[in-house]
Amino acid sequence: MADTILYDYWRSSASYRLRIALNLAAIPYRAVPVDLVKGEHRAPEHLARNPQGLVPVLDIDGLQLTQSLAILDYLDQTRNLGLVPADPAERARVQALAQAIAIDIHPVCNLKVARHATELSGGAEGMPGDWMRHFIRPGLQAFEVMLGGFEQSPYCCGDTPGLADICLMPQIYNARRWEVDISDMPRLLSVETACNANPAFAAAHPDRHAPAG
Amino acid sequence: MADTILYDYWRSSASYRLRIALNLAAIPYRAVPVDLVKGEHRAPEHLARNPQGLVPVLDIDGLQLTQSLAILDYLDQTRNLGLVPADPAERARVQALAQAIAIDIHPVCNLKVARHATELSGGAEGMPGDWMRHFIRPGLQAFEVMLGGFEQSPYCCGDTPGLADICLMPQIYNARRWEVDISDMPRLLSVETACNANPAFAAAHPDRHAPAG
Repeated sequence: MADTILYDYWRSSASYRLRIALNLAAIPYRAVPVDLVKGEHRAPEHLARNPQGLVPVLDIDGLQLTQSLAILDYLDQTRNLGLVPADPAERARVQALAQAIAIDIHPVCNLKVARHATELSGGAEGMPGDWMRHFIRPGLQAFEVMLGGFEQSPYCCGDTPGLADICLMPQIYNARRWEVDISDMPRLLSVETACNANPAFAAAHPDRHAPAG
Repeated sequence: MADTILYDYWRSSASYRLRIALNLAAIPYRAVPVDLVKGEHRAPEHLARNPQGLVPVLDIDGLQLTQSLAILDYLDQTRNLGLVPADPAERARVQALAQAIAIDIHPVCNLKVARHATELSGGAEGMPGDWMRHFIRPGLQAFEVMLGGFEQSPYCCGDTPGLADICLMPQIYNARRWEVDISDMPRLLSVETACNANPAFAAAHPDRHAPAG
């Protein structure tokens, strides 16, 4: 039925973002897992899809697209999802909020980056978790302060889910995975509650996409 | 004269991007240096501007904006710079190209990240340069392959400078600073030559903004 194919990995934050957006847009898609742990992203087959060897890749509308933020922008433009405000000033503020996670936390905590740091540390005890915690907690603390500039009613920036929510939820998943304390971040936790109650977010959760067995 | 203030640091890639864009838009601005080496970004004064404690911050049109990509989008929208194509599919491809640098190379090679990795390595010889080289060269190799999908005539994606060029030039500056070999990347080098010949890029170069002495 669906011509739309998402090449993803269940635990990849960027894949998780696209699952949320595809659900919000009610676009049926077929998921093709690319197992990062088995190194499938470095296979010639996947490098032909994305020279960066990363997930996600989205086949949609006869296009093959990479980079989750670019794809979110494409879905927003072609499916009118309202992920960012139309007014340029508001739009810049919302994008900055989302980018505080998507640029300053997520890439630094990419598995490949954390693994290289672990190797350099001589496989120190507590790694790679210590690496994750070192960057995730202060990053989310700054995000919590930035959220203060918006009204959570109940999503990050208003009454409909947007770009910031889509970037936040996968980062919260990772925060919990690596036992980062976020109990002192009430704005963030209230957004989490709202997103958890939204079926588009719930159906995109990694636990629903983990390989069997 | 100018109400526009750029809080920047001469060697910050994200600041360098905004200097290029402000020059392309012919917006006069006053630069206020925030010395990252002296820790001025962690001062309450700067945290009030940006809870993330990062540069750049741009005061413009009565707004105080953070995150270079969000600000580039704002300038593009309000000053019609044509930094990305209007067609959603082309726009997604160009954004993905720029993000291959702005998301997957630059944040990982942020000074604070490289310093933490250096510390974890016990101050290993060759650090932080080895960290930089480990991520910059493969990142730019993927970018070189991706550039193959566009015509460099003479800029990354056509005959006017755009988002990809603005992200590429600061990354090339960093590649040279950390002695990354890019001699086998002809597309990238041809774009570099074109950008170097453009006064908006030349005037934004870190060497023109280094502190005196």
